[in-house]
Amino acid sequence: MRAIVIHAARDLRIEDRPDESPGPGQIGLRLATGGVCGSDLHYYNHGGFGAVRLREPMILGHEVSAYVETLGPGVTGFTPGQLVAVSPSRPCGGCKFCLEGLPNQCLNMRFYGSAMPFPHIQGAFRESLVADASQCVDATGLTAGEAAMAEPLAVTLHATTRAGGMLGKRVLVTGCGPIGVLSILAARRAGAAEIVATDLSDFTLGLAAKVGADRVINTGTDPDALAAYSADKGYFDVLYECTGVAAALAGGIAALRPRGVILQLGLGGDMSLPMMAITAKELELRGSFRFHPEFAVGVGLMQRGLIDVRPLITQTVPLDQAESAFRLASDRSQAMKAQIVFS
Amino acid sequence: MRAIVIHAARDLRIEDRPDESPGPGQIGLRLATGGVCGSDLHYYNHGGFGAVRLREPMILGHEVSAYVETLGPGVTGFTPGQLVAVSPSRPCGGCKFCLEGLPNQCLNMRFYGSAMPFPHIQGAFRESLVADASQCVDATGLTAGEAAMAEPLAVTLHATTRAGGMLGKRVLVTGCGPIGVLSILAARRAGAAEIVATDLSDFTLGLAAKVGADRVINTGTDPDALAAYSADKGYFDVLYECTGVAAALAGGIAALRPRGVILQLGLGGDMSLPMMAITAKELELRGSFRFHPEFAVGVGLMQRGLIDVRPLITQTVPLDQAESAFRLASDRSQAMKAQIVFS
Amino acid sequence: MRAIVIHAARDLRIEDRPDESPGPGQIGLRLATGGVCGSDLHYYNHGGFGAVRLREPMILGHEVSAYVETLGPGVTGFTPGQLVAVSPSRPCGGCKFCLEGLPNQCLNMRFYGSAMPFPHIQGAFRESLVADASQCVDATGLTAGEAAMAEPLAVTLHATTRAGGMLGKRVLVTGCGPIGVLSILAARRAGAAEIVATDLSDFTLGLAAKVGADRVINTGTDPDALAAYSADKGYFDVLYECTGVAAALAGGIAALRPRGVILQLGLGGDMSLPMMAITAKELELRGSFRFHPEFAVGVGLMQRGLIDVRPLITQTVPLDQAESAFRLASDRSQAMKAQIVFS
Amino acid sequence: MRAIVIHAARDLRIEDRPDESPGPGQIGLRLATGGVCGSDLHYYNHGGFGAVRLREPMILGHEVSAYVETLGPGVTGFTPGQLVAVSPSRPCGGCKFCLEGLPNQCLNMRFYGSAMPFPHIQGAFRESLVADASQCVDATGLTAGEAAMAEPLAVTLHATTRAGGMLGKRVLVTGCGPIGVLSILAARRAGAAEIVATDLSDFTLGLAAKVGADRVINTGTDPDALAAYSADKGYFDVLYECTGVAAALAGGIAALRPRGVILQLGLGGDMSLPMMAITAKELELRGSFRFHPEFAVGVGLMQRGLIDVRPLITQTVPLDQAESAFRLASDRSQAMKAQIVFS
Repeated sequence: MRAIVIHAARDLRIEDRPDESPGPGQIGLRLATGGVCGSDLHYYNHGGFGAVRLREPMILGHEVSAYVETLGPGVTGFTPGQLVAVSPSRPCGGCKFCLEGLPNQCLNMRFYGSAMPFPHIQGAFRESLVADASQCVDATGLTAGEAAMAEPLAVTLHATTRAGGMLGKRVLVTGCGPIGVLSILAARRAGAAEIVATDLSDFTLGLAAKVGADRVINTGTDPDALAAYSADKGYFDVLYECTGVAAALAGGIAALRPRGVILQLGLGGDMSLPMMAITAKELELRGSFRFHPEFAVGVGLMQRGLIDVRPLITQTVPLDQAESAFRLASDRSQAMKAQIVFS
Repeated sequence: MRAIVIHAARDLRIEDRPDESPGPGQIGLRLATGGVCGSDLHYYNHGGFGAVRLREPMILGHEVSAYVETLGPGVTGFTPGQLVAVSPSRPCGGCKFCLEGLPNQCLNMRFYGSAMPFPHIQGAFRESLVADASQCVDATGLTAGEAAMAEPLAVTLHATTRAGGMLGKRVLVTGCGPIGVLSILAARRAGAAEIVATDLSDFTLGLAAKVGADRVINTGTDPDALAAYSADKGYFDVLYECTGVAAALAGGIAALRPRGVILQLGLGGDMSLPMMAITAKELELRGSFRFHPEFAVGVGLMQRGLIDVRPLITQTVPLDQAESAFRLASDRSQAMKAQIVFS
Repeated sequence: MRAIVIHAARDLRIEDRPDESPGPGQIGLRLATGGVCGSDLHYYNHGGFGAVRLREPMILGHEVSAYVETLGPGVTGFTPGQLVAVSPSRPCGGCKFCLEGLPNQCLNMRFYGSAMPFPHIQGAFRESLVADASQCVDATGLTAGEAAMAEPLAVTLHATTRAGGMLGKRVLVTGCGPIGVLSILAARRAGAAEIVATDLSDFTLGLAAKVGADRVINTGTDPDALAAYSADKGYFDVLYECTGVAAALAGGIAALRPRGVILQLGLGGDMSLPMMAITAKELELRGSFRFHPEFAVGVGLMQRGLIDVRPLITQTVPLDQAESAFRLASDRSQAMKAQIVFS
Repeated sequence: MRAIVIHAARDLRIEDRPDESPGPGQIGLRLATGGVCGSDLHYYNHGGFGAVRLREPMILGHEVSAYVETLGPGVTGFTPGQLVAVSPSRPCGGCKFCLEGLPNQCLNMRFYGSAMPFPHIQGAFRESLVADASQCVDATGLTAGEAAMAEPLAVTLHATTRAGGMLGKRVLVTGCGPIGVLSILAARRAGAAEIVATDLSDFTLGLAAKVGADRVINTGTDPDALAAYSADKGYFDVLYECTGVAAALAGGIAALRPRGVILQLGLGGDMSLPMMAITAKELELRGSFRFHPEFAVGVGLMQRGLIDVRPLITQTVPLDQAESAFRLASDRSQAMKAQIVFS
């Protein structure tokens, strides 16, 4: 089978890899669709991010859907041909954090396509894949592309859960990449009353509006628009900060009202924080990392028509043109989510 | 002007009352529409409920919308002719609970149409009404009937807020009167993943399904259906108990999973509780009483099309046939919410 | 070795049982001290409680301390002769609730001395005991009697954790048996500003005052004292209801202020609840069941001198007089906690 | 009467000011004792902090106790000669934040001795003071020095409340000035199981140990000691960061376990934050600002002997030597809290 392997920055290859057979509790899958994520892009463009660097070739990818092919011993509840969303999260189920109900903090996590540990955890961009049955969530009724959105959607659902009750809240989303726009969908689904989104790209802002933002602000062409929300100690209850840029964070903090909650989803290493504002307004910055139960929740919400991610899928390319998906995905003027079709 | 006055059980009269003029901070309103609520029905059918008894004639009604007519001194932001939803909640703003952010616990609350204090607090079913500007929420874009639903909707939004984060939760609603069906709308809006509703009436269950329940169960004709949800310590995360019947509460508790939350919205006086199940599963019973900020939140959600209450309005009668609305509202085989048109 | 075996109500025997050897991960223990708990008393006095009935002979006991004798394969960190508190809680570590961080909700729990499942889970009142190392908490510096209090202390620490932040709160404890008095210690340790305790026995109230209650009320001789706390919607933030009597619960509820929290620790089957007060004051009834991490926490708090349970140990008898401990433990006029010395 | 007035950095004068008479709801007080706070020191040493600068002479001081002298019209419940702790917090009681139960976020706050607004809010370091009765908390049984500690104690009680349930938690305190040491007292009172404190001064660490820290670490002489707590994603549940130094914050974050809570109490303007660690461990940074109900709570806890602040009062000087208190208070090798006696 073929797999998408990153060797170094800008050195992406489609290579052959041996097929595997499902063991007990596992499922043999034929990959359907894979989405290119920001961390994939970091490996592709820069060979890593922060202290995390590629040290050996690694199969990329962790946003995937697949068709069931063969069931390993003991697996029930799946049927060959069935579309599933495949969670890249594989906690050990035995460490202290797994037993505290925090599988996303697992001490032995093997998350697809991550160069944090060495040997690296190989990813899921390959034509055939063996996964644990517990990673596979029935996605019947969804398109393969939608099902492959379950992973980034889960990230934003987890963040939204971390924010606490959202019903009737006023929400600011700074940065309208895929995580920002999915945050809009998640916040709206969770009951947000008013959502304002900012970005520098009219293209992504257009999609933000399309999926439900009540107001979009291009902070490049309208740099002062957000300031109006800072009167009387601020307006918004929740900030999804999806740029990773300190200035966006500071601007968002100024617009948050006392006791507001900050979810920092855009990652850019150490950040300078206006600590006096956080103190004086008693804001809460809540880290949110990956997800776990939210993966299946998101698939179910899509199946019921309660969240529609289809407007986000802006490009779809076949496997043999995979590298073009990586190039497209970096272009905020025309791409939101680029996906690769494996079969 | 004419007003709907209850004198005793089954003694409902349409009487003349003097017009009033708005003082500073007040608005003179021409009533649009009023909805008949369960407590109105208790006064009409029984002369009160529990220890609360009519001791003098009282104008009924607290679910109303109105048109702005005249602005009292100092009032801005309203325009004659504008449709507003009128909140019946009038906390004092000075007692200890108001200053703790719990206006619904105000020690000096004057909630429309309540015989709890004496003299009774007169209600809002009258052709013209003077209200504080702070009670009036712009309802432009809504029908007068929808705007009059803001009050019961707020009750369920408040309960949903009390339940905590709802995103991805499994919800059981026992009892599909107006509060039950609005609870379905509120829970779905707040992100519930799966909603099951029970009742004894196929008519109300039909409406429950129409507004979004994923499954409806007639516990009269299918008394064992709920039991399947009790395996492995239960299935649902949240129970909206909207019948006030101990058996429904006990059945719902059996179907709740550990740490599940019970919102007891149906009121029937003292209730027998299966305390051992509450203890062993560590359930939480959270009282929820009226609302405050949720009134304006609900109007905004309706205006943005995020909650649609229109299917609930099953009967609309003119003021001079008001009593028929009270009779209809008691009939669960054909009525969900009966409303009276005042102008 | 000898064990304390209940055959039927009032049929308590000291019988020989074979010794066991510790397997991998286990410890061979010589029992030090065992405390008689309310559930032990139910088996002794009534042959069970509610639907839980003895169906075969069962070794009683789940409040025990012991001395380490032999370490099974792979066990480190313990030394022969060392005093340990032994937790009776043995969750499976693999079911869905264990993986949600709720081991006290384990679907396969084997809690010492419980007739809920059949075969019954044998208890810990025996001269020698094999336990998992994970059940054993170092109790160096404590007396054997104190260490045997770790279990009921953990019950009240868990309840206190369930109550949420306790700092500065006003607390009412109804019922001053061991759980009530330990609740006083737990609430004070967690920062309660004011604690009022009620009971019918001056003896237990004396102990309540000794361990820190700011005021004690004998509701038998002073039945109206609590009513003063009901003005302006109530006074207390938290109620530990430790009697299981509906009248005590109702009285406590009347004295709770809006948004107050009820912890129902006294068990008496179904209870009638003043639901209107719970609704109108938006009270929260939170079930609390057993404990898990709180067992080790409590031992540590005792070791640091931050909680002193010694005043509660009112009787200590040798194993061959064990039945007298059961008789004494039922007498609220002279006993708080009766313990049996095994070695 | 005499008052302590700051004119500019290092320009502290004792000046005459006219006496005032209590109006309705007010009390005429004779000042007992005043403590020098960090913000007083900023005005004394630097003429302000951050963007807050002295623009006119200002009476300093907001940590004060006093004796009741005269009662204004309508004031009851106080007796001439009675010692009271005087809260510097004067929210308006009418703005939206006051009505949300957040008086510390009052839009019209007049907090003693603050140069944030202009004209500045004059402080309480004056021989006689007129205060609202609602600011005065009975301190009978305390020394005047203890009563003057109520204000900084309240800051740490509020932060502890913000941290959520503390029972059984592991706590790290970085920085052992008055706020750090009071945080130790507050965390212990709220049920912390283990408290580790760091500083660069053996003098302050000695006091930290004296009031209850289980371990103290001089990070100057033992810079690697904290690193051992970073294994397996960290050890502590709560961090009170009381230095305002980014390196201390980063070190504390490394030692926090997943879902740990950071309270940033030391203020030093913008701070650089290791955002990746906050995200990956899902830490929560919760701003905490001043206090409100915690002022009276702290006085009560001191009166009941549940918190003992006396070891912190290291220097006491008479009013005419007030400037020496400011000089002493800056010296961490010999001073924790320096107080000035007014009468």
